[in-house]
Amino acid sequence: MKIAVVAPSCPIDPTAADKARERAAAMGAELFVHDQCFASDGHFAGPDEQRLAALRDVMADETIHAVWMARGGYGSNRIAERAVEDLPSAARQKLYMGYSDAGFLLAALCKSGCQAVHGPMVQDGVRDDGEAALERALAWMVRRHPAALEPGLREGKPAMAFNLTVLSHLLGTALEPDFTGVDLMVEEVAEHDYRIDRAMFHVTGQASVRKVARLRRGRMSDIPENDRPFGSEPAAIFSDWCRRSGIVDGGSAEIGHDADNRVVPFPL
Amino acid sequence: MKIAVVAPSCPIDPTAADKARERAAAMGAELFVHDQCFASDGHFAGPDEQRLAALRDVMADETIHAVWMARGGYGSNRIAERAVEDLPSAARQKLYMGYSDAGFLLAALCKSGCQAVHGPMVQDGVRDDGEAALERALAWMVRRHPAALEPGLREGKPAMAFNLTVLSHLLGTALEPDFTGVDLMVEEVAEHDYRIDRAMFHVTGQASVRKVARLRRGRMSDIPENDRPFGSEPAAIFSDWCRRSGIVDGGSAEIGHDADNRVVPFPL
Repeated sequence: MKIAVVAPSCPIDPTAADKARERAAAMGAELFVHDQCFASDGHFAGPDEQRLAALRDVMADETIHAVWMARGGYGSNRIAERAVEDLPSAARQKLYMGYSDAGFLLAALCKSGCQAVHGPMVQDGVRDDGEAALERALAWMVRRHPAALEPGLREGKPAMAFNLTVLSHLLGTALEPDFTGVDLMVEEVAEHDYRIDRAMFHVTGQASVRKVARLRRGRMSDIPENDRPFGSEPAAIFSDWCRRSGIVDGGSAEIGHDADNRVVPFPL
Repeated sequence: MKIAVVAPSCPIDPTAADKARERAAAMGAELFVHDQCFASDGHFAGPDEQRLAALRDVMADETIHAVWMARGGYGSNRIAERAVEDLPSAARQKLYMGYSDAGFLLAALCKSGCQAVHGPMVQDGVRDDGEAALERALAWMVRRHPAALEPGLREGKPAMAFNLTVLSHLLGTALEPDFTGVDLMVEEVAEHDYRIDRAMFHVTGQASVRKVARLRRGRMSDIPENDRPFGSEPAAIFSDWCRRSGIVDGGSAEIGHDADNRVVPFPL
């Protein structure tokens, strides 16, 4: 079992890569960490062309069974549409794991018929209790261990999970997948309450999103102080927009920007 | 000439209202500042129902010739769809001026056949050189003075102007107007470069936005420091997304979150 790590958004440091390599080895998997993960170009892990080439390389490699996103940040949207053009058949034989900014890529991969999976990334290893996040990600990639899965997944029901802001920014673009009948989960980090409210307005205002089976609320963490109290908490904001839009409120989901972030395989 | 001021988003303070009242009087116009402008409910100038009722009241009032938004902030999206339901005929006889968060409302009003106008708001009076902003807004509302207009407007060509983030969040919702053949301007304030890049990706990725005649770049000001340099400035970010999406780059536009913000009447 060989897992490739690439960074379609921002670079990681070698410490994070080393931790992930050790955990993978302990599970009997070989981790190939692409040099591109340590490249730097302004905000990004190298220019668009370099990030795209690294991703396309590992997608086309028949010896690689899974592609693991190194971390989020920002930037995978800039290469996601081209990443899934003229897919080699090897690209359809593997799974792709990530979350946060990598959601742009998961959407494009899902839409293209590849196995996209929301789950922890390599950089999560440096969080407090980050080993657990790495083990959960690897448990799914290497062994398809059901304990890694988000516990509210329903047998036979398709599910997707996104960062709320990322989801808001891919709607209407070439990356948007079909949400019909999907249990759609959203999580958020470091956004003000008013921004969560605005993104919920946008997401639940889409005809395409109103086709979901349910909308589920992941954790919304590290919310900055408003200049004055917003007047409503994320859980209430979430339920309010479900009610207004007629979308079924599926309650809380075990995903978020933290070490407890669970695995959600997208539909194939 | 009677102009009503309401606050569909956040409240203003009496000083701002007094300044605007004085400037209006000097131009021979009467300013009716609705009490709702000073209401407060968490983030907002009163609960949704109160903000909506104040707006609907002045829209239906036949003695009022123009509705002037007090300020932006956040919240007009929460009432915009209901604001334009079953419009009384008096609502179609007047113009509506605002920008920033009020763009949600301008979009809904334009879509409903009302005269929406991007232009300075009452709260702009407390900016440095804010008197000039108030005079410009009033010069258009009271006298349709052409010097108030954005100088790049083209004779016979429809134009619209939005805050970039607001535009991004109304796409695909019931508020989205028809952009076909429009000279569309975007401005931004206090958003990181990476967020400007992400919003430009989203906006220019829409089939509906790709129908514009041109996209024009308003000022993008008060950009917070990135955690590391992004690697590209807003002007280059803007041109890059125009190029990628095949949208004509119409160059710079004289709009923004500042006292020099010019007037842009939306198509009727």
